Amino acid sequence: MIVEIISIGTELLLGDIIDTNSAYIAEKLTENGFDIHYVSTVGDNLARITATIKRAQQRADIIITTGGLGPTDDDLTREAIAASMGLELKKDERLLTAIKNYFREKNYSMTVNNEKQACLPEGATEIPNEKGTAPGILLERDDIIIISMPGVPGEMKDMLERKVLPYLKELSAGLIQSRVLNFFGIGESSLEMEIKDILDKQTNPTIALLAGKGEVKIRITSKASSKEKAGELIAAVEKGIRERVGEYVYGSDDKGLAVVVAELLKEKGLSIATAESCTGGLLGDRITNIAGSSEYFQGGVIVYSNQVKHELLGVEENTLKKYGAVSAETAQEMAEGIKDNMSTDIGIAITGIAGPGGGSQGKPVGLVYLGLAIDDYSQTFKLKLRNDRAWNKWMSTQYALYYLYRYLVNGQEF
Amino acid sequence: MIVEIISIGTELLLGDIIDTNSAYIAEKLTENGFDIHYVSTVGDNLARITATIKRAQQRADIIITTGGLGPTDDDLTREAIAASMGLELKKDERLLTAIKNYFREKNYSMTVNNEKQACLPEGATEIPNEKGTAPGILLERDDIIIISMPGVPGEMKDMLERKVLPYLKELSAGLIQSRVLNFFGIGESSLEMEIKDILDKQTNPTIALLAGKGEVKIRITSKASSKEKAGELIAAVEKGIRERVGEYVYGSDDKGLAVVVAELLKEKGLSIATAESCTGGLLGDRITNIAGSSEYFQGGVIVYSNQVKHELLGVEENTLKKYGAVSAETAQEMAEGIKDNMSTDIGIAITGIAGPGGGSQGKPVGLVYLGLAIDDYSQTFKLKLRNDRAWNKWMSTQYALYYLYRYLVNGQEF
Repeated sequence: MIVEIISIGTELLLGDIIDTNSAYIAEKLTENGFDIHYVSTVGDNLARITATIKRAQQRADIIITTGGLGPTDDDLTREAIAASMGLELKKDERLLTAIKNYFREKNYSMTVNNEKQACLPEGATEIPNEKGTAPGILLERDDIIIISMPGVPGEMKDMLERKVLPYLKELSAGLIQSRVLNFFGIGESSLEMEIKDILDKQTNPTIALLAGKGEVKIRITSKASSKEKAGELIAAVEKGIRERVGEYVYGSDDKGLAVVVAELLKEKGLSIATAESCTGGLLGDRITNIAGSSEYFQGGVIVYSNQVKHELLGVEENTLKKYGAVSAETAQEMAEGIKDNMSTDIGIAITGIAGPGGGSQGKPVGLVYLGLAIDDYSQTFKLKLRNDRAWNKWMSTQYALYYLYRYLVNGQEF
Repeated sequence: MIVEIISIGTELLLGDIIDTNSAYIAEKLTENGFDIHYVSTVGDNLARITATIKRAQQRADIIITTGGLGPTDDDLTREAIAASMGLELKKDERLLTAIKNYFREKNYSMTVNNEKQACLPEGATEIPNEKGTAPGILLERDDIIIISMPGVPGEMKDMLERKVLPYLKELSAGLIQSRVLNFFGIGESSLEMEIKDILDKQTNPTIALLAGKGEVKIRITSKASSKEKAGELIAAVEKGIRERVGEYVYGSDDKGLAVVVAELLKEKGLSIATAESCTGGLLGDRITNIAGSSEYFQGGVIVYSNQVKHELLGVEENTLKKYGAVSAETAQEMAEGIKDNMSTDIGIAITGIAGPGGGSQGKPVGLVYLGLAIDDYSQTFKLKLRNDRAWNKWMSTQYALYYLYRYLVNGQEF
């Protein structure tokens, strides 16, 4: 089934807000086997929204809109849906009561504007919004289904996952399954070359290569007459891919490197501490983005200056002088130092030149050393990254998490 | 002038990549006084790209596309522009030589596919790409201008800023000026109320309220017969706004809180160190995202466990026991501890409950204390944030930077 996504809101056209809703909806729908041909963004203008919905009706089976369901004069999605279908807007008394109750419970004062949110195009039903006052809209016709959700990302996501996806999955009878394999350490084009014959001959499941932020993913999507059959089709293709490039697969589906590492640390009952120079706290930030990380994450240090590398981590002044702050030797002493200081099982360290300044001929921007210390074992890794500060910081943490992952899975055999 | 943006690439429809390019272009163009009515995303399908460009020709003066300029069979933007305008594609020999030279210099091997990148629609000119192999395209007709840029964000931004914006500014004769004021500590709706009369009566300059990530911005855009006149119009409105709500303005234009703080620290010659609990390194990450931060940032600690709060920062065991890790007392000792440990002028500390777990009735999720220690002066701040881990982490660092900014500007008068 072909889906078209329309994001509504002038703020999206001004560029101050990036339209993350469309990407989120597109990802969830693609995972569930729906095809998306167009995504549009349109401002708070009734004629333009109506025209955009009308055009989508001609080329899609399902239209999903976000935004424009609020109470103000700028919120025109209801009106545009009604206009595009030649329908009247009607006030739904039950919905009005629900909105009034919401305001009463929250002790907010309700304005006349808010009554607008109780209006629906004739024949449409409300999609309950458990995170806010603007209900979604579901309009089913023989030739088109229109689903409208709020623009606030938290409200939209909640509604999509709890109401809209289950509804759409039922439409597609659950016969579409998908699975994502996450790769690190191999580029998109190399991965494509390695499995080109598999990619070329495949029709069901379909296989898609997806570029992540410093990593690559493969999505396998199958359609079959039963859930089990669809799962079997995926398993067979996954097996073939893993035989070829399995060494680069670190996880699947929504689990990024930080999550996979977190699960392994918890499973093995190991604690960890970080020592960061050029990444400035980004590794700690990524580790602590995961709820419950205090179970295994003891803490870390950000040692931007040489002085604190020595004072806080016990990196020998001689090491700093002889090899420099950006060296395998310093990375190793940093990792061992933080492990000892914080009495953890594992210490992980990053030191490098993020750029744009600070590089030299011998030590160019993008040169990064990682240190990993576990019990009495320690190991260092050298990275040569690109010439961009934000990218170099990000990739340094990617590699740090990846080598840690490899150690946790394979032990000392890198 | 009306601009329409078209993002090209199937990966954008799958939702794995969020289309940040459109938002970036929209922001830059809006700042420069161009109006954007539609943004579209379309996959790598020749018929659909061509149809999308044709439609845009009917409703815009300028079309800007990104993506689809690469060397592979999927890259169809050149073909679609030619098809939509009824033009032939021609190989440009000078461009071909330039691409060959690029590959020779980089020591990459060039494939036949890459020759495609030397093709342009008849009458179009190349926009040089200094960050990659795919040149942009500029096609000028009496009724429409088409500008095509690569989809790789780094290449697109470089091309936009160095080539496309100067070209567009010349088109608009530089008579449009804009200025953004950045606010912290006031919500969007309160700000709107405070200046509603100014907003309502304003036509030139126009004034737009923009929601940032935990902050608000006001953009003032003026059009006039000369650059000076346009600047004067802005200055008058800015003065009126500042008289009303100037206390909340912390900076202007592209300068976020971290940049404003960085400039003040450099100007005053002050050094800083961070002590983070619930933010897990995010504050350090934000400070070190700014190139040259090693001038004033000495380093920091991430003290996730109580043990390291005591051991690394010298927070008294008694304080932790009596008041708890999330308390004004602990925040203060953390700030003083990191300042002393790293021998900096300023120590800044964050301790709180990011959630979703870890809250209690007395100390709910979202409770955060900040500590600021400068010489012998220290001060703490209590925050009550929302129930979302990522948001709570972000807002804690926003407030930390904001209070530091206030101190650097006003001294001890908070």
